[in-house]
Amino acid sequence: MEEKVLIFGHKNPDTDSICSSLVHEILDKKNGWENTKAVRLGNINKETQYVLDYLGIEEPELIEKIEPGQGVLLVDHNEFNQSVDGIENAKILGVTDHHRIANFETSEPLYYNAKPYGCTSTILFEEFKQFGHEIERTEAILMASSIISDTLLLKSPTTTEHDKKALEELGKIANINIEEYGLEMLKAGTDLDDFSEEQLINLDAKSLNKDGIKFVIAQVNTVSIEEVLKRQEKLEEVINAKIESENLSLFVFAITDILNSNSEIIALGSKADVVEKAFDKTLVNNRAFLEGVVSRKKQLLPAIDKNI
Amino acid sequence: MEEKVLIFGHKNPDTDSICSSLVHEILDKKNGWENTKAVRLGNINKETQYVLDYLGIEEPELIEKIEPGQGVLLVDHNEFNQSVDGIENAKILGVTDHHRIANFETSEPLYYNAKPYGCTSTILFEEFKQFGHEIERTEAILMASSIISDTLLLKSPTTTEHDKKALEELGKIANINIEEYGLEMLKAGTDLDDFSEEQLINLDAKSLNKDGIKFVIAQVNTVSIEEVLKRQEKLEEVINAKIESENLSLFVFAITDILNSNSEIIALGSKADVVEKAFDKTLVNNRAFLEGVVSRKKQLLPAIDKNI
Repeated sequence: MEEKVLIFGHKNPDTDSICSSLVHEILDKKNGWENTKAVRLGNINKETQYVLDYLGIEEPELIEKIEPGQGVLLVDHNEFNQSVDGIENAKILGVTDHHRIANFETSEPLYYNAKPYGCTSTILFEEFKQFGHEIERTEAILMASSIISDTLLLKSPTTTEHDKKALEELGKIANINIEEYGLEMLKAGTDLDDFSEEQLINLDAKSLNKDGIKFVIAQVNTVSIEEVLKRQEKLEEVINAKIESENLSLFVFAITDILNSNSEIIALGSKADVVEKAFDKTLVNNRAFLEGVVSRKKQLLPAIDKNI
Repeated sequence: MEEKVLIFGHKNPDTDSICSSLVHEILDKKNGWENTKAVRLGNINKETQYVLDYLGIEEPELIEKIEPGQGVLLVDHNEFNQSVDGIENAKILGVTDHHRIANFETSEPLYYNAKPYGCTSTILFEEFKQFGHEIERTEAILMASSIISDTLLLKSPTTTEHDKKALEELGKIANINIEEYGLEMLKAGTDLDDFSEEQLINLDAKSLNKDGIKFVIAQVNTVSIEEVLKRQEKLEEVINAKIESENLSLFVFAITDILNSNSEIIALGSKADVVEKAFDKTLVNNRAFLEGVVSRKKQLLPAIDKNI
């Protein structure tokens, strides 16, 4: 059998990374490309598990590294430091993404479809339209779930008209009440009790690198910031250990209240003061409250990246 | 007046860089985006001049650098070292390209439409289709000229089925004989007599950088390799001067016979032996004949990049 071309999102996969991989494979099949296969680079989080359970579908296979020359298709990321081990020597055939482009290069031309939308699945939704393919219930719910997750039910400032239009149409196709389904899905993802502090800071952590300065922005969603802050002392302990072991200059841990659209951040590291400049706030007890901030990509990262 | 968003191809612009910029502006207007403007980063070559004269349209305005925060749209390139001075601090809103991605990064999400086709204009052709816009005679000839130039009338190995299909349809829309028009256009571009050796090596030169190793691959098209080789001694002189002044490890000058689809290369620099490994040839008098090699992107660059 010919070797499969692997489709995957970023490490610490979120709902968009998993669902867009699965949708990409479905779209490939509709385009007559039988040889692609969705996989994942890490554990399924509780929010995504809710989606898979709802649809009664299996999680994609876990992979930890890839061999040189392996054909791959990336979704929901492009930066090599967020991708699979061995990505530098892979054959990257295509990327579908909604993030900035950085720490990425290829030696050959490729397909690259990026749009500054709230979600990768919205780009895939438009590809279904372009190719004139019918959208069936499974992929409709997968794409709707991605959009709900990435835009926090269209409340994040990353939300575009494209995401709104896609989600509305997908809700109709799937014949579900988006608001009800979405709240249940998001709440499923905020159940943090089972996680150790070590796990919490890695649940959705992006590693970044600017001119050799390494930093991490991690995020958890919750319906009660207070609840998470009860664990601050232990959280700081594991964050500081990570700063030491990975030689980080900054670790920002954002606790995002998805009902009220605010975030409390914990910032540690030799460059913690960057956060003060970035948001014009003074850190008190290593913390700051950021009103209206919910998006890492649109709010946290640009402000921190500019000041680091 | 609101500041214009500038559209441009690479330095040392070829026909695809100029024509795709002009077509992009036309497409933007059809999409209701009035605020974009095609410009150029260098002199119009004789081939492109033939196209502009044929259509009776003005060359785009020359720009030499841009201010921080300037909104830009790139066509036919992405690597910063091939782009305008100041690109690092521009606001890159979109890229339409058919090259590998390298030496490129943004701090914000953007539109990026790359496909591994023979020509940028083929990607734009498909965008006209996707948006459902009519293609008029001017943009049909502009896009056809780009495809003819980049694929050497569909003979280059970079040619894809997409390019063939686009060129056929564009020929019909423009109501021209593609073969006749194309040969006239290509021949116009091979008139090298007026150029100094200094100009010849810069006509279509790509600067590359791999892990800090700087190298250049320059190319000229001709109907007589012999004619160009008469100037070898003087060519080597200016190439060596450029190697010294720009601290290059390798300069490859490819003289491509567009009628018979072969190239003779002159390779100079401390890493000239890379070329011997790349093509399994021995350099004699700093030269090697590469049968069937016409494409920098698909043939010269990957082989050299792998061995440098």
